Amino acid sequence: MKFPQTLLAAAGLLLPFASSATAPFSGPAATATAVAKAAPAVRIDPTYWWVGMKNPKLQLLVNAPGIAGSTAMLAAYPGVTLESQQKLESPNYLVVNLTISPDAKPGQLKLSFKGGKSLTYSYELRARNTDPQRTQGLTQADFIYMLMPDRFANGDVKNDVVKGTRAPRVARDSMYARHGGDLKGIQNHFDYFKKLGVTTIWPTPVVENDMPKASYHGYAVTDCYKIDPRYGSNAEYQQFVKAAHADGLKVVQDIVLNHWGSYHHLFLDKPAADWFHAFPKFTRSNYNAFALNDPYGSKRDYTLFNDGWFDTTMPDVNQGNPLVATYIIQNFLWWVESTGLDGYRIDTYPYSNPQFLMQFGQATMEEYPKLAQFAEAWEGTEAEQAFFAQNILPPVNGFKSNMPGLLDFQICFAISDALKTENGDLSKLYHALQGDWLYTDATRNVPFLDNHDMSRFYSVIGEDFGKFKTGIAWLLTLRGTPQLYYGTEVLMKNFSNPDGKVREDFPGGFPGDKTNYFTTRPSGQAGEAFDYVSKLANYRKAHPVLSSGKLMQFIPQDGVYTYFRYSDSESVMIIANNTKDEKKVDGNRFAERTDGFTSGVEVVSGATISDLKNLTIPAHTAWVVELRK
Amino acid sequence: MKFPQTLLAAAGLLLPFASSATAPFSGPAATATAVAKAAPAVRIDPTYWWVGMKNPKLQLLVNAPGIAGSTAMLAAYPGVTLESQQKLESPNYLVVNLTISPDAKPGQLKLSFKGGKSLTYSYELRARNTDPQRTQGLTQADFIYMLMPDRFANGDVKNDVVKGTRAPRVARDSMYARHGGDLKGIQNHFDYFKKLGVTTIWPTPVVENDMPKASYHGYAVTDCYKIDPRYGSNAEYQQFVKAAHADGLKVVQDIVLNHWGSYHHLFLDKPAADWFHAFPKFTRSNYNAFALNDPYGSKRDYTLFNDGWFDTTMPDVNQGNPLVATYIIQNFLWWVESTGLDGYRIDTYPYSNPQFLMQFGQATMEEYPKLAQFAEAWEGTEAEQAFFAQNILPPVNGFKSNMPGLLDFQICFAISDALKTENGDLSKLYHALQGDWLYTDATRNVPFLDNHDMSRFYSVIGEDFGKFKTGIAWLLTLRGTPQLYYGTEVLMKNFSNPDGKVREDFPGGFPGDKTNYFTTRPSGQAGEAFDYVSKLANYRKAHPVLSSGKLMQFIPQDGVYTYFRYSDSESVMIIANNTKDEKKVDGNRFAERTDGFTSGVEVVSGATISDLKNLTIPAHTAWVVELRK
Repeated sequence: MKFPQTLLAAAGLLLPFASSATAPFSGPAATATAVAKAAPAVRIDPTYWWVGMKNPKLQLLVNAPGIAGSTAMLAAYPGVTLESQQKLESPNYLVVNLTISPDAKPGQLKLSFKGGKSLTYSYELRARNTDPQRTQGLTQADFIYMLMPDRFANGDVKNDVVKGTRAPRVARDSMYARHGGDLKGIQNHFDYFKKLGVTTIWPTPVVENDMPKASYHGYAVTDCYKIDPRYGSNAEYQQFVKAAHADGLKVVQDIVLNHWGSYHHLFLDKPAADWFHAFPKFTRSNYNAFALNDPYGSKRDYTLFNDGWFDTTMPDVNQGNPLVATYIIQNFLWWVESTGLDGYRIDTYPYSNPQFLMQFGQATMEEYPKLAQFAEAWEGTEAEQAFFAQNILPPVNGFKSNMPGLLDFQICFAISDALKTENGDLSKLYHALQGDWLYTDATRNVPFLDNHDMSRFYSVIGEDFGKFKTGIAWLLTLRGTPQLYYGTEVLMKNFSNPDGKVREDFPGGFPGDKTNYFTTRPSGQAGEAFDYVSKLANYRKAHPVLSSGKLMQFIPQDGVYTYFRYSDSESVMIIANNTKDEKKVDGNRFAERTDGFTSGVEVVSGATISDLKNLTIPAHTAWVVELRK
Repeated sequence: MKFPQTLLAAAGLLLPFASSATAPFSGPAATATAVAKAAPAVRIDPTYWWVGMKNPKLQLLVNAPGIAGSTAMLAAYPGVTLESQQKLESPNYLVVNLTISPDAKPGQLKLSFKGGKSLTYSYELRARNTDPQRTQGLTQADFIYMLMPDRFANGDVKNDVVKGTRAPRVARDSMYARHGGDLKGIQNHFDYFKKLGVTTIWPTPVVENDMPKASYHGYAVTDCYKIDPRYGSNAEYQQFVKAAHADGLKVVQDIVLNHWGSYHHLFLDKPAADWFHAFPKFTRSNYNAFALNDPYGSKRDYTLFNDGWFDTTMPDVNQGNPLVATYIIQNFLWWVESTGLDGYRIDTYPYSNPQFLMQFGQATMEEYPKLAQFAEAWEGTEAEQAFFAQNILPPVNGFKSNMPGLLDFQICFAISDALKTENGDLSKLYHALQGDWLYTDATRNVPFLDNHDMSRFYSVIGEDFGKFKTGIAWLLTLRGTPQLYYGTEVLMKNFSNPDGKVREDFPGGFPGDKTNYFTTRPSGQAGEAFDYVSKLANYRKAHPVLSSGKLMQFIPQDGVYTYFRYSDSESVMIIANNTKDEKKVDGNRFAERTDGFTSGVEVVSGATISDLKNLTIPAHTAWVVELRK
């Protein structure tokens, strides 16, 4: 998620910093009725739970008008104990703490509330699902396809407009309105992903974003326990993950820890004022994560970074409040357990409370050791990026990240910098990899060329097809689990200002589309681009050396960058000429890796490289060369 | 020392890669006679030693024709034992290992050599000098003046041309010839340094550089134990250090561990081929220190970096040979003990053998805990720079630097970047300080604006006097021990291509100079520049808060960068507007540091800042504001 564009405000697309945020805590806000009317008389989060979780504790947040005046009781249930309850500032919430022993059986807990408000609630404890296909995690052998579900494909027109939501309309001609894409649309095209060679789908957040405007992107969550009805139901999402697994695909869920949407039910009717960071007037984050580990930093810059709001419509959640921290952690255990998803991509990772991040990582990894996790840390230097991952550094200001991997912005910047100008700087790419010395294991990082917040790769590189292939070749042969942004494979283009321009509909995803890239191979270079990605991705699938092989790089020289992926059984040389001139390269320099081989085959073109000692590589060309003995 | 310019070669100023380097080892080279004729029949390094050193071991390198065929013996001397002796590849060397017990007394060791070559040698063991003024080390309160002794001032015309040297001439109109400056010249102007406010003198290397060409810079050492006769004698250097101390000044010696000059006596007549790194043909370093900690690096890139020659005239010394390592370490203990110098500036630090660097640091710091040490690590990122200092990182590839401080290239680059363009990027300077989180103690770093390898600061910033003052204000108020390059204080200018242009003679340093800045304050801005540096440096001397006070910085905003130095007794605000427009700054942002103060005084201009909450700061202006209650 990028720093918001002031443009959005200029276009009138941001909510003014409304009364809900500036007003001191005052019970349910007036606007809450819109949510309340659809809500049951009582709501308990998590909406259900499981027996046999590693952590026996469960914190229930009970929400009903006046419930704070009540006392909770639990009817006798073997293995489950009501440990304590806690009132909050609002009369409408009660926290109930349970312990669920390892031998408790699935069933319905009978909770009753007596006193100010009397009611009963049947709370479900389920059995855990032990299907081995669930939560497979990711390896470097995977290849992630990132897409925006609203913009990728519309598989169910019935959920395009959902009554009772705050934006009950679609408008494909508006870049800020919903376009109608959904889970079913993605599911309809599993064959496309497989043809392309991707293994993993990462949709931008699919959880409810019931915001009045521009909620299609998904980063302004309004209900942590509900799939957005424009994408489908919770049941459909579970089905979606299951179907993906059945089809050999994996699913990454995009989640936001740092903030919620300003129409989140817990913001409209706050459990307590201290569930959110608030300032006397709207205060934006300074977006400067360097404040976290600046030895000379001011408290003000630290607080502004961590507690300031990411945007006017995105209240900053106070994860320093242990009740809030537990609420969030349980929510993301719940999604894994209820769906079997394979990994989390964590938005705006550095912006969260550092202590909370460590708690979150520990809790999720303890419960789901196989779950993949990679985070967005959009930082300017290798060291600052590595600070937010598991690294070789000691704790700094009490923070030691336990995040396994990161979206590799350094690689993204480096590839862009190398390709966006003539004779671009290759040393940045070399340095982006060299910077891995700071990580515990940088192979868990996710290299990428672009995303929904950035100008599209093909535009950045001046629509040069040779450079495009070079970028793809690097993406699919560097260490880590590569990520492609939807449409990059068919040369979708545009600059990100405004960002709606890089979030256009995928051709063929929507009823009435004249162009359909799902059914018809694009003509011209767009088709060649698809073929290039597909061929290399499928080669990568068949040749583990490109994902799990060792990596050796040579310092770029004379506009040519060369590295090798190698194992006991296979060796591949990736050599890229990033200049406008043909280059002759003395291959003796690479003897460490080419000794014992006599020739090679470029795996996409099939061309033979007959002399590994004397290489002549054309302008703006990357070769992926399988070495032969 | 920067990467050599190919220019130098083009100008015919580099020696061809001569037979001495390419030839396999073959005893004394033909050219050795030039040295041998001046040398005594036998030479022993170290030339003398001391009783009472912490390390009781002493390795003598004995050099005499045919000495390898002899057996060394030591006449009985209480507390001194001849432990072992070792032949080398050359017949002209013998290594003799002594142990000197703590109770040994000063005196003359009688060494005799019998066998192939018979001779005797009286080797001196001196008493250590316990004068408390010796080897004071540096603190942040110091201010270093870096100069090139050949170009600063000529105090003794009798040593301008020394017979028997390979370049027995001076030519002030040639930027590559010697100009005649010397130690006496520096010493004659101690009063100038004190007026300017500097406390410490760092001349480029003063040890013998008896090269046929361009040896004025000092980085091609030809005798590790001898002051270059064009600068003075060893005795004069000892006197120079003593006189500096007596005058309240300190001396930093500039040393090179990585390489020697190609006319070094131990290269012309090598003890063994493995005292130097050699390749089948001349092989240059790749100058890429990133190879040292690249997890994917090739052996070739590593070896080229570490063992490749810095330049054709600079053989790379093999510090992996324990005899060589000890030879070098003893040499730099010898210089401290024999002179009482205060610190070492270490040239091309990353290029040396990493294990040797750790040995060197340990040996010198154990013997001289007060000795200041700071190194040149001309690297591109905060993390890569920090890798070469004492830092919070675990060892990487077996290397953990024990270098206390570094020349702070990140700060130099950041200040240049901020000032060289209109509305230059201030965040780099903020980041350069923020990057201190990686160091054990970055206050031992040495910030600077330029040096003998770089374009002069005043030229880099487009000869803008407002920017000049901003740069000086930063230099003298940031953490660390600042360094000024000679002439910057009087606006000497030029770009470093060729580098001779930034190594021009200081006006007034040489007989017949029409302009003399030592005796006459320069007119115009050059005079104002001197006054600005002098006023701020002397204020800094009188106000420890600017050197030892805490530092708090605020993220740059709107082209204005603000930080504070503060202690229990003093607070100073440094605020710089780096734009071409006057800026109004809301001082409430700095409440953490200004609460309790009502006004301030700009310490150079004396102007009163009456309202700390509403600051109006002119275009391209830095204020150093002493806060008042």
